[in-house]
This record gives sequence, structure tokens and C-alpha cells, in this order.
Amino acid sequence: MKYHKIFKNRKESIGSPPGSLVHIGRKKTDKAVISLMRYNETELSETVPDDINSALIEKQADYVNWINIDGLHDIELINRTGTLFNIHPLLLEDILNTTILPKIDIIDDQMLLILKMISWDEKSGSIESEQVSFILGKDYLISFQEKPGDLFDPVRARLRNCLGKIRKKGNDYLFYALIDIIIDNYMAVTDTLSERIDNLEDEVLKNPVSEHTTALHDLRKELLYLRKITMPLKEIANNIKREETDLISEDTLVFFNDVSDHVIQVVEFIDVFREILSGVYDTYTSTISNRMNSVMKVLTLIATIFIPLTFIAGIYGMNFSYMPELSVKWAYFAVLLVMLIIGVSMLVFFKKKKWL
Amino acid sequence: MKYHKIFKNRKESIGSPPGSLVHIGRKKTDKAVISLMRYNETELSETVPDDINSALIEKQADYVNWINIDGLHDIELINRTGTLFNIHPLLLEDILNTTILPKIDIIDDQMLLILKMISWDEKSGSIESEQVSFILGKDYLISFQEKPGDLFDPVRARLRNCLGKIRKKGNDYLFYALIDIIIDNYMAVTDTLSERIDNLEDEVLKNPVSEHTTALHDLRKELLYLRKITMPLKEIANNIKREETDLISEDTLVFFNDVSDHVIQVVEFIDVFREILSGVYDTYTSTISNRMNSVMKVLTLIATIFIPLTFIAGIYGMNFSYMPELSVKWAYFAVLLVMLIIGVSMLVFFKKKKWL
Amino acid sequence: MKYHKIFKNRKESIGSPPGSLVHIGRKKTDKAVISLMRYNETELSETVPDDINSALIEKQADYVNWINIDGLHDIELINRTGTLFNIHPLLLEDILNTTILPKIDIIDDQMLLILKMISWDEKSGSIESEQVSFILGKDYLISFQEKPGDLFDPVRARLRNCLGKIRKKGNDYLFYALIDIIIDNYMAVTDTLSERIDNLEDEVLKNPVSEHTTALHDLRKELLYLRKITMPLKEIANNIKREETDLISEDTLVFFNDVSDHVIQVVEFIDVFREILSGVYDTYTSTISNRMNSVMKVLTLIATIFIPLTFIAGIYGMNFSYMPELSVKWAYFAVLLVMLIIGVSMLVFFKKKKWL
Amino acid sequence: MKYHKIFKNRKESIGSPPGSLVHIGRKKTDKAVISLMRYNETELSETVPDDINSALIEKQADYVNWINIDGLHDIELINRTGTLFNIHPLLLEDILNTTILPKIDIIDDQMLLILKMISWDEKSGSIESEQVSFILGKDYLISFQEKPGDLFDPVRARLRNCLGKIRKKGNDYLFYALIDIIIDNYMAVTDTLSERIDNLEDEVLKNPVSEHTTALHDLRKELLYLRKITMPLKEIANNIKREETDLISEDTLVFFNDVSDHVIQVVEFIDVFREILSGVYDTYTSTISNRMNSVMKVLTLIATIFIPLTFIAGIYGMNFSYMPELSVKWAYFAVLLVMLIIGVSMLVFFKKKKWL
Amino acid sequence: MKYHKIFKNRKESIGSPPGSLVHIGRKKTDKAVISLMRYNETELSETVPDDINSALIEKQADYVNWINIDGLHDIELINRTGTLFNIHPLLLEDILNTTILPKIDIIDDQMLLILKMISWDEKSGSIESEQVSFILGKDYLISFQEKPGDLFDPVRARLRNCLGKIRKKGNDYLFYALIDIIIDNYMAVTDTLSERIDNLEDEVLKNPVSEHTTALHDLRKELLYLRKITMPLKEIANNIKREETDLISEDTLVFFNDVSDHVIQVVEFIDVFREILSGVYDTYTSTISNRMNSVMKVLTLIATIFIPLTFIAGIYGMNFSYMPELSVKWAYFAVLLVMLIIGVSMLVFFKKKKWL
Repeated sequence: MKYHKIFKNRKESIGSPPGSLVHIGRKKTDKAVISLMRYNETELSETVPDDINSALIEKQADYVNWINIDGLHDIELINRTGTLFNIHPLLLEDILNTTILPKIDIIDDQMLLILKMISWDEKSGSIESEQVSFILGKDYLISFQEKPGDLFDPVRARLRNCLGKIRKKGNDYLFYALIDIIIDNYMAVTDTLSERIDNLEDEVLKNPVSEHTTALHDLRKELLYLRKITMPLKEIANNIKREETDLISEDTLVFFNDVSDHVIQVVEFIDVFREILSGVYDTYTSTISNRMNSVMKVLTLIATIFIPLTFIAGIYGMNFSYMPELSVKWAYFAVLLVMLIIGVSMLVFFKKKKWL
Repeated sequence: MKYHKIFKNRKESIGSPPGSLVHIGRKKTDKAVISLMRYNETELSETVPDDINSALIEKQADYVNWINIDGLHDIELINRTGTLFNIHPLLLEDILNTTILPKIDIIDDQMLLILKMISWDEKSGSIESEQVSFILGKDYLISFQEKPGDLFDPVRARLRNCLGKIRKKGNDYLFYALIDIIIDNYMAVTDTLSERIDNLEDEVLKNPVSEHTTALHDLRKELLYLRKITMPLKEIANNIKREETDLISEDTLVFFNDVSDHVIQVVEFIDVFREILSGVYDTYTSTISNRMNSVMKVLTLIATIFIPLTFIAGIYGMNFSYMPELSVKWAYFAVLLVMLIIGVSMLVFFKKKKWL
Repeated sequence: MKYHKIFKNRKESIGSPPGSLVHIGRKKTDKAVISLMRYNETELSETVPDDINSALIEKQADYVNWINIDGLHDIELINRTGTLFNIHPLLLEDILNTTILPKIDIIDDQMLLILKMISWDEKSGSIESEQVSFILGKDYLISFQEKPGDLFDPVRARLRNCLGKIRKKGNDYLFYALIDIIIDNYMAVTDTLSERIDNLEDEVLKNPVSEHTTALHDLRKELLYLRKITMPLKEIANNIKREETDLISEDTLVFFNDVSDHVIQVVEFIDVFREILSGVYDTYTSTISNRMNSVMKVLTLIATIFIPLTFIAGIYGMNFSYMPELSVKWAYFAVLLVMLIIGVSMLVFFKKKKWL
Repeated sequence: MKYHKIFKNRKESIGSPPGSLVHIGRKKTDKAVISLMRYNETELSETVPDDINSALIEKQADYVNWINIDGLHDIELINRTGTLFNIHPLLLEDILNTTILPKIDIIDDQMLLILKMISWDEKSGSIESEQVSFILGKDYLISFQEKPGDLFDPVRARLRNCLGKIRKKGNDYLFYALIDIIIDNYMAVTDTLSERIDNLEDEVLKNPVSEHTTALHDLRKELLYLRKITMPLKEIANNIKREETDLISEDTLVFFNDVSDHVIQVVEFIDVFREILSGVYDTYTSTISNRMNSVMKVLTLIATIFIPLTFIAGIYGMNFSYMPELSVKWAYFAVLLVMLIIGVSMLVFFKKKKWL
Repeated sequence: MKYHKIFKNRKESIGSPPGSLVHIGRKKTDKAVISLMRYNETELSETVPDDINSALIEKQADYVNWINIDGLHDIELINRTGTLFNIHPLLLEDILNTTILPKIDIIDDQMLLILKMISWDEKSGSIESEQVSFILGKDYLISFQEKPGDLFDPVRARLRNCLGKIRKKGNDYLFYALIDIIIDNYMAVTDTLSERIDNLEDEVLKNPVSEHTTALHDLRKELLYLRKITMPLKEIANNIKREETDLISEDTLVFFNDVSDHVIQVVEFIDVFREILSGVYDTYTSTISNRMNSVMKVLTLIATIFIPLTFIAGIYGMNFSYMPELSVKWAYFAVLLVMLIIGVSMLVFFKKKKWL
């Protein structure tokens, strides 16, 4: 993952008035799609209005109104949504800026929550992320996604099938249910990462090769990224609990406790994974270096044994006219024997010193 | 220990309604077993009811009622227990999820405590853990274990034999007594780990070999795991003390102080062990590298002494027709002497430079 | 960036009375320039008074009065500004000392804010910084810069063109708008740094060379510097929010929340970059060392194969008069064959051991 | 110091009722000895009662009664002391457990303080520690030591000689005086450690040898141990000051401030020592490696110079029948000259490259 | 700097009654010198009384009385000062103990402040420190120095010359002015250190040599020492601000804010310097190792090229009676050519592999 991509297009907006709406991020879909689910315990209607205006008209006060908008690049649409639903310009600006870290903000009677929806991309072997924002109002919940997707389909199914207590509860519970899905995906990604780390660890302990350096580096970066977008969630969960707001009922708060627990678990595991990776790196380094050392030792030993022997051969290769040993009949075999003795005793010596 | 095992089966539950009961973990026993101990200062009855329903019926208000359930895979049973004892769905969900970190939660008039029961598995040389959960109610205590075991037998014996003051006290003291046993096991495991570290340290200081890399890595991981499941206990002990709950009497709180002290001791020791291990690793690395270096130095020295000598022999092995030295009678011995002198002076030089 | 430059000229001022005005820093411009913008929702006037005195006279109570002073070396001017606007001597001293870290101070009814304005200098490949100070009073805002620049031009343009709500708001909003520009520049610099780190990372992963050591060192220092001047901003943003001051209206405080969020993002990214750099350094070290090792291994292997062969050749180069093999006709070819076999089997052995 | 010793005998007590008295630790003396000092400003009596019972009888309400018990293995005696002085079972359990970290506990009207008394054992070159516990009651102070010793003799002397204001003050001041002695010993041990570190540092900077690895490791462990038993003291000193207890008078609290300052100094110095040790370790590693490198470089240089020369000699040692140079009269000397030139120019080249 | 010096002479005082006056430290001057400055806005008198008694007599209630005592070894004098000015024994003990870390203490109506006055000793290349203590009373300020010096001369000059507002203010402002001088010296020392680090960094980046190890080690220790004596100042400055004391007026407190800012800056810079040093160390290590590696690589390459060639020469040096090549006329030149080809192709191969 390229980190400078996250900051892309920032420079252009320096000095523009705060609250000016610029979409910072990649354009991920062609046309923004609006969908509205309106339900209470007994009734449920689904529509796909052409415009946010018709969505506002269809909204009814004693129902839960869930408006989902796919596609952040349609600034015009986001802008009209802001005007119609009285959303503070700074909140709108944040929704459009996909480089932002997760945050929560309450201005007047609206709560803004920005999260990263993550998934593991098997092809690139890295974490894919998409920004999801929520505006929780008195009787409505607006969710913004970068591109259309089936992320929230399980909740839609539960709504349609009256599964669980979701139809009996308000928009705060819907809000929780959607967040819960996102956090569950964090756990799934952490799960995938832990498998990867386990596999890498096994490989490194069995047979470390130089490619593992890059693999370790990549995993470390994924963990860093995951940590960066998870850490703020702890604070956010606390804020929701502490904040004295009418938007979330006493009853639903218990469920946010649960979200908070899940987030803490993810953060805890990330920290453990980081420590494991750093341990794997240490093990990798010292195993590689141990193995290298023993190879070099054996090679050097071979040279060390033959160099003195070659020297002896060299002596009797000299052409001095008077070298008495040369004419002795058994001298050649004696020298061979001496060489053998020297070679073997060096071997024995090295063996005894445990150098071999 | 494989870390991805801890997260296993998570993915399947994404999007399911919160509070949906899924048992996440290995199935550790065949049939769930319920046992009920009902006692006060003078009376004690033990039964093994077939079903949780009969346990509820046998429960009596002015006795301490301790219901122990072995086997979390019987979701049906856990579900009925939840309904009969009015346990909040989120609490039930946590009890079934054996991948969860230790936690405490109070909803309405019930306290949920989830702990890891650990023991040292000599065969695999790693920490074995099992999840134990408690639901503390007004006049009852329900304990859940993954598999049947003799973990709580010492407390059962004390109850039967009227040992200590346990029979004179309420279910909060029973709660404490059971936790105390679990924490004592933490200390035993820490003890085992400290012995292992001591032994490894001795071995490394005496004679570091490459297998120690893996041993260090494994111990480090066990400490990481132990730390991860112990850290939350500190917070939990504080919560119990701070929490304004009628479930635990003033009198029993003093004993939770003691539990808190024990937990802090374990955490302190784990941190010390981590630092010792990191020190052992440093010592291992530098000893290995020192030893390797001195071996290579000696080997290189041998080569360095003989290479120049071989060169001299090479010179007099040349076949030039006019090499005046060759015909001198004592030249051969002179050359041998020169070689000896060169060899010895190199040795002396190296010795003096402390390279040898 | 030389760190001792930051402290330059400090020594001279030891023991001088507190509040004595000394300009600590480089003289960055020739003549100090004063400019005054006076506006409300309907009117706007711009003047460039010769002296601070005329600026004071032109100031009007029911307008926003923004006095901008370029050039801190004109101590006389700063001194007169202090006297005319009743600025506490300690505040004045801080404004002049360009080695100071960002800080906020409220004395009586004036708020002093000192920031570093940073930009990326492509030529030197390092962060350039300039000190910017603000004195926020009841109906005026004085800004001090080290040298004239177009930093605040976007705000001036918005004021002239009535863009955004800036003309409808007070001097506190102007104060925010100016700070916002500065913080936007922090993000731009962080962006540049992230690109640099990305590039360096790519290069190191592809082909680490020794120049990367210096590049890593330099980037690390830039991050350290950026971190040092950003860290206090978090605290400063909090102070503004907490401080019970009439200088900033309830309404504008929301915008300072936004500044605070931006600062936190920058700090977060800096920390991530630091970790990435340290990961890149690790990868660099182990890649370099792996590559070096494999080179040395191959070289040593070549020597190891030929040294024993040379020894065999040496044996048959000896001049003993009785060496039966020498006269055997096929002996030479036999020896060559033996050498080949030895050489090949060593190769095969090394290959099998994966040393090659 | 073996860390598993500290945990010894723990396992046996798992599941025993809390407050059950087991002495965990080595048996350090044969018979427990009780001594009683009873004094006020004018009178002082010293007795060595056979039993704790007689000590209780001799105790008088308007005197300071200091009961000192040497020998924790006499469980029977400790038990009776507990009963006679109404000490809470959990406090008694802690007094007997010598593996516990320093702690303070106030139950009802008694304060328990557990400290480690440390001294430097010159023979083993490590810290020796003994557990000292205090029970501070309304008009008495009971001190427990593992073995008899002269630790408190200076205080006894001051009591007998009416030195200082100790006789004019209550048992809280006596309590302080005894703690003060113990903390003074911490400083003495820190002093010894600092001398050791200084010496080791000097040696390492002058001439690092492989034994220093072990020395560094040992010192690091002693510091770890010292830190572990000192850290809790900070918290303890704070607790004494904060705790609203009548046991310590306003007047004496000032002196506990002083104890707190001393403890902080010890902790500060330990932290500095740890950093110095880690710096020494770095210096050791890089010096060793630098030295090793330069040795290997010289050795390799020698080989590198002679190997090409040997090759030249080898060429003219070949036995081709037609080698024109061989028969040239001055060829031999020419070759020798060429070899000299090659050798010298390699030397010059290496010298110029600063490789030599 | 030897750290055990700081603790020197500690051991002797174990067990002595608290508040017993022992001078711990080097005797730095021969005779203690007392000087008294008494002034208000209009008058100023300077005397050098023989004894502290006359100083007390000359002291007048509606003046600022500044008594400066040079020389802590005159215990008798310090003792009398304590008695005459009602200084608590524990404060007096601290003043005499020059091994103590900076601290602040308020007992009754006196404030004790202990600081380290530091300066850079160019000769030893290390920080020199001297202890300075202040007793701030209702209408007097007593300052204690280890040896006479011109440290406070700038303040004396300002007093004599009526510079600044110092004559118009009370003894609390004098107190501030003296502290301010000391802190200014911290900045000067930090400045010197930063220059040193910059220079070392430049040298290391240009040409790292083994002496830099020691230089890095020394600088690291100086920073450690500086950090240790600066860290408590932050807390001290906060204490002064928080403390509800009449000794320091509302008006002067603003100036202590300034002191606090300066201290924070010093601490910040020390932390940055520590990180830079650790970065320099990393760069040093990897540059040294890179350079070493490339040297070894070249050397090994030379050997690797010549060893196979020498082997070929060895083959034709063998004395077999039947070696057909030997008698071929152009064989010698063919072999030379083959050698050249082998040599050159190895060079090309190594060049291509970028090993050269």
C-alpha cells in the first residue's frame, strides 16, 4: 500500500475556505445511488429514489429512515444532502475527504461517524479499505459509501426477514448493527493476518530465505496500517458511551460496550502480532547468520587443511640441486604419510574444538 | 501455539444478529454436565441434575447455590440457562466465545466474569488454556467450563469438610475462592516459565547453540500470551473494587484486594522475564558471534602464515635455466630456515598483537 | 538541518533582565513591512502604514483589524508595537525569539500563539521553517512573520472577494483561517515526506546501496524535526478549547476542533512514517547483509574447490626421484579425471547442501 | 540470582483456603527470637521474652512498644502473634510469604508494610535480600525479620543513648527510623552497583573481551531485580502520605516525604544505570566487531598480495618443453623484480585506499 | 563523569539520625563567604558580614534581604544559619548533600529549592555541575553555593544599576531572576552539546572511524546526565505554580511560567538529541560494516580469480613422464591465453553481477 496515495490531492486545497466541498480520493463508481429503507416493527418499504430530495419527502417521523448513498464523487448530491438535512459544512467536508482517520463528531443534533471498512485483498496480499460515514439524526440514519457494495446486505436481510430484534428498535440500534458488521470485518482481517503470520513464522523457523525480509516488511506495514485505523475506534467507542446525547438510547448503549470490547480485542491482537513479527525478525536474522556462519566455517576449514599441505608439496617441488630427501627411495611415501597425518590431526583438532 | 486458532470460525458469524449464540472454539467434551452444590453454614447438598431446569428448581434463596456447567458446545443448554436465569444475550454470547480476552461486565443485577484457566503442558512445552466464565447473581453462582476437570475440587473439598470460613460466607466469597484457585495457577505457570528461562539462560551462558534461537522464540511467545491474558485482570480486579454493586459484600472486597496483588505480581514477573529473555538473546547473539569470530580468526591465521611460505617454495619451483641459488649446496636448507623464521616471526607478531 | 543553528546566539543573553528584547534568529528581510486590513461584512479597506502608530490610529472598534508585520529584526518597531498594544514584555520576548517551540500564552486580555510555518525545500531536500506569531486582542489580530511572503494571500483573496463566511465573522474566525492555512502546509509537507519515504522504500526493497544509509538518516531527522514542532500543537489546540476566554466565540470553537483533528492526523502519520522508516532500515540492513553473504559464499566456494585440486597438482609436481605413478603412461589422465571427479562432487555436495 | 527460587514452593499451596499460613521461603535461622523495647522520653526497658504472650503482657499503653521477631519459619509463633494482636489472616499470610513484592496494606487499625532489606554480597557479586515486615498498631510496632541480624542496631543505639529526637516521639517515628535505615541500604547498594558499572565501562572502553558479555548480563539482571523491588516503594510512600490514618501523625509525615525522595533518587539512578549499561553493551559490540574486522582485513590483505605472486611462480614452474623465457639468462631476476613491483604496488594501492 | 562519585560517602551515614548534618560532596573552597544585599526601590546596601549572626541583625523587614553563602563544607556555619532562620533539619540536610537531585520542598513558611548549576568544561569535554540551594522566606532569600563564583554577578549588576524592574519587586522576583540565570546556562550547555552532536554527525557521515564509538558513548552519557537533572525541573516549575503559598506573588508567577517553558524546551531538545545520536550510531554501524564488506569483497575477488589460475599452472607443473601437451610447441602460449581468458571472463562475470 502506498502511503502517499492516502494524502493525494491534498495540496490543491490549501487556503480554500473551511467547509468547501472537495472530494479527496479516487472516484470509485460512475453514478451515485441512493436507497431508502423505511420501517417500523410492522411495516417495511424499500425505494431507490432518483434524488435526495424525494428521499427527504418519503422520510416519515415515526419510522426508522435509513438512507444509503453509494458514491462520494457526486459532490452536487452530497451538497444537496447537506442542505436538506442541515448538516454542518465541516461534517460534510469530512465525509468527502477519504484520507481522514476514523472520527466521531457531534454538532447540534447530528452525530457524524467516519469509519474505514476493510477487507483482505488476496491478490495484492494487502488490506483494501473504503470509507464509510454515518449521519445519525433524530429519526433517520444516512450512510455514505465510496462505491456500491453488498457490505450491509446481512442487515438488509435481517430487516426484511424480521430477524432478531432489529425491527423492534430505533435508528440507534440500526446504527449499531451497521457498525457491528464493519468491526466484524476487522476481526476477519485480523484473522487472515494471524494466519499469514503463523505461516511465515513456520517457514522462517524451518528454512529462512531472503524473500522473507520483504514478507516481514509487508506484514509489518499492514499491521501498522490496521493499527492506525483501529486505534481511534477505542476512543470513539468511549466517546459514544460518555457523550450525553439523546441520539442513542440507554438501552442500545449496552451494545456499544460490546463494540468497544471487540475493538480492544483487535488492538490487543495487533500489538501481539507486532511483537511476534519482531520476534520472527530476530529469529530470522540470527538463523540466517548462524547458517551463513557455519557454511563459511566449513569452507574455511577445507582451505585451512589444504593450504599447509600444498606448502609441503611446494617445498619438494623446488628445483635445488642438492635436496638429499629427493633421492631417498621411500621419501615420497613418507611425505604422503606425513601429509595424511597432518591433515587428519587438523581434522581431529577442529572436531575436538567443535569447529566442525 | 498457533495464534490463528484463537480467531478460528470468526468469519462465519459476520453479519449475524448480535446476541446470536454461536460456540466459537473447539468442542472439548461429549456431553455437558451440570452439578449443583447448595449449602449454608450447617447444611450442604450435592446433586447432578439432568437439566438446567431442575437445577433452577432445586436452587433455594437462603442458601448459596453453585451451579457448575462443563461443556460449552451444548448451545441449547446454554441458551436455556440464559432464559431461565435472565442472562442478557450479549453476556451469553461472550460465554460461548472462547476466543475472547478476560473481561468483566455487569448488566442489571448479574456480574459476568470471563477468565482463562491456564496450565503448563509439559509435552508440548507450552501453555494450555481453557475458558472459565462466572455469572454471579443474587443468591447463586454459575460457573461454565469448556471441559470437565478437577480444577475446582479443592474448593469442593473445603466446602464438604467445612474448612476455613467458606461455609460461613455467601456466594461472593465462593466466587472469590474459585478465582483465587485460577490465579494460583497463573503463579504456578509463571513459576514453570521462570525455571525454563533460568535453565535456558544457564545453557546459553555456558554453550550457546543454534537451537536456542527457537527456544528463545518459543518462550517469548508464551510470555506474550501469558501477558495478554493477565493484563486485563488488573483492570478487572480494580473494576470489582470500584464498582458499586451489592453482589459483593464489603467484607469480601478485602480478599479481592489480595487477588489484585497476586495479579500485579504475575504481571511484574512477566515483564521481568521478558527483559531477561531479551538480555539472554543479546548475550546469545554476541557470544555466538564472538566464538565464530575467534574460529575464523584462527583459520585465517593458519592460511595467512602458509600462503607467503608457499609463494617462496613456488619461486624455487620455477624452471628458469639460470637460477644461481639452485646450484648452491646449502641453499635448500637456507630456504627452509628462512621459511621457518618467517613462519615463527609471523606467529610471534600475531601473538603480540593478541590476534591469536 | 543543523540543530545548533536553532540555538544560535543564545549564550549572549544569559543574565539579561527577563523581557529584554533581543532578536534571536537570522535577519531575513531588509525592512519591516506593516499592512492593515480593516473590514466588516460590508466594508473592507487595505493600507500599508509607515509606522505601527498610524496602524493603531486607523484601527476601529467595530471592524476586524488585521495588522500584519513582516520582519522581526526591527526590534524598535516590535518594541513600539508592544507599548502601543499593551503587550506583556514576556510575550514580546517570545515573539522575537525564533528558536522557540510552538506555544500559546494568555496574559490579561491578549492571546499569544507562536507557530512554525513550514514548507518543503526541494533543493536542499529538507524542511524550511519560519516563525509566525499572533497576538489576538479584543478587536484586532496582529500577525508577525520573519520575512515577507505570500503565505496568507489566499485569506486576503477570500476577504477581498467575500468568499465563504469569513467577512461575516469576527477576528477569532480570521485567526482560525490563518492557522488553518499553516496546518494545511503541515499536511502538504507530510505528503511530500510520505512520497519520499515511499520512493526510498521501493528503491531499498529493489536494490539497496550504501547511499540509502544517508537518505534514511536524513529523512529520520526531518521527521524528528517535524514531530518536535507538531507535538506542541496538540496541546495548544486543547488549550484553546479548554481556556475560558472571551477572545474566541462559542461558534468559532467548532472550527478549532477541526484544526485539532488535522494536527492529530499529522502526528499520527509522522509516527507511522517513523515506524516505516525503522522497518525500511531493518530491511536495508538485512538485505545488504544477505547479498554480501551470498557473494562471499560463492567466492569462498570457488576457492574451496580449487585449493584441494591445487594440492593434488602440487603432489605430482614434487621432484622425488622415486615416484612410481609418474612413469605410468595413463597416470596424468587418471589424475586429471580424479581432479574432475573431486571438483564435480564438491560442486554437487555444495549444491545439495544448498550452499550454492 | 535464580528467579525460579523466588517462586519456589508456590505450587503446593494452590487451592488452600486464603489466609492459611504457609511459610514460603528458605528457613534461615534455627529458633525464632523475640525482643521487646519499651520506652518513652524518660524510661527505656529491654527484654527478650520467651514467648509472644509475655511480650503482649509487658506492652504498656503510654509507652512505645517495639517487638522484633527474628525467624519467619516458626509458623506457630507467627500464628499466635496474629491471634494476640488481632492481625487479619491475609496480612499474616503476606508476612510469611517471602516471595512477595514490597506492599502496604491497612486493614482495620493496623498497617502492614513489607519491604526487602538488601545488601551487596561481595562473594557472589550479587544482591542479597531478606524480607522485613512491619505491623504498626496504635501503641506498638512489630517488626519481622527472616534471620537475626544487626540491621536495626543503629536505631537501638540511638534509643539507648537518647540520640536525636527519637525518644521524644511516638511509634510512628520509630517506624520511620527503621524504614530509613533500609532505604539507606538501597542507596549503598546502588552506590556499589554504580562503581561496578563504572569499572566495567572503563574496561570495555579500554579493552573489550568476551567475558564482559557475562558481566554485562549479570549487572543488567541485578539492576532489574533492584528495580523490581524499588518501584513499588514509590507507590507505597505515596500511599502513606495520602492514606487518612491516625497511625501516623501529621508531624512525622514530613519525614516520609524524605523517604519518598530517597526512593525516587534510587529509581532514577537505576534507570540511568540501565541506559548506561545498554550504551556500554552497544560500545562493546561495535568495538569488538571493529577490532575483529581490522584483524581479518590485515590477514586477508596478506593472502591477497601473495596469491597472485604465487600464480606467477606457478607459471614458470610449468614443464612445457617450449617456454622461451626460461632460457633467457636474466629472466629469473626479471620475474623476481616484476613480483616485487606487483607486491609493492598492491601494498601502495591498499595503503592509499586506507585498507591497511 | 564517574557516576559513583555522585554517591560517594553515602555509606558512612547509614543509620545516623535523620536531620544529622553531614556534608556529602567535595570540599570546594577554603573558607565560607557570606554576603548580604539589602535593597528596596530607592536604597541598596552591600555588606560581607563575618558571621551569619550579623547578617541576621542587618536584615530588615521592609527591604529585600539576599544572603548568599559560598561554601557548604562549613557545617558549623550552615547549622547556625539553620538555627537562626528556623530552617527544618531535613531541609538543612538536603542543602548539604550535593548528591541529591533537584527538588523543591515547602515546610512551614519556607521554600527550599535545590538546583544544579551546570557549565560545559571544554577541557574534559563534559558537563561540570555545582549544587545551588535557595531558602525563600518571608522577607529574605538565602542562596547556598558550593564554591565562590561569579554566577550571580549579572543580577548583582542589575540590582546596583537599577536595570529592569528588579529593584521595584520583592524577594520572589529576585528568586526568579537567579533561577532564570541558572536555566539560561542549561540552554547554553544544550547549545554546546548540539554543536558537538552536529560535528560528530558530519564526521560520521563523511568518514566513520572507530574513535567515534567512544565519542558517541560520551555524548550519550552527558545527555543522560543532563536529562536526569533537568527532568525534575518540569515538576518543580509546576509545583511552584500549583502550590498555594504566599511566598510568591500572583504577579511573579507569570515569570515562573516562562521558566517552565524554558525547561520544557531543554528537555525536548535533549530528547531530540538522544534520538539523533541513536540515529548517528545506526548510521555509523552500517557505514562501517558496508565499507568493511566492500573491502573484503574486493580482496576475496582477487584471491578467487587467481586460485583457479594457479591450479592450472600447477597441473602443468606436474612431473608425469607422459603429458602430451607439454611437448606441443605452442601449448605454453595456449595455456597462457586460456588463463587470460578465464581471468578476464571471471572479471566480467563479477562486474556483471555487480560484485565489483
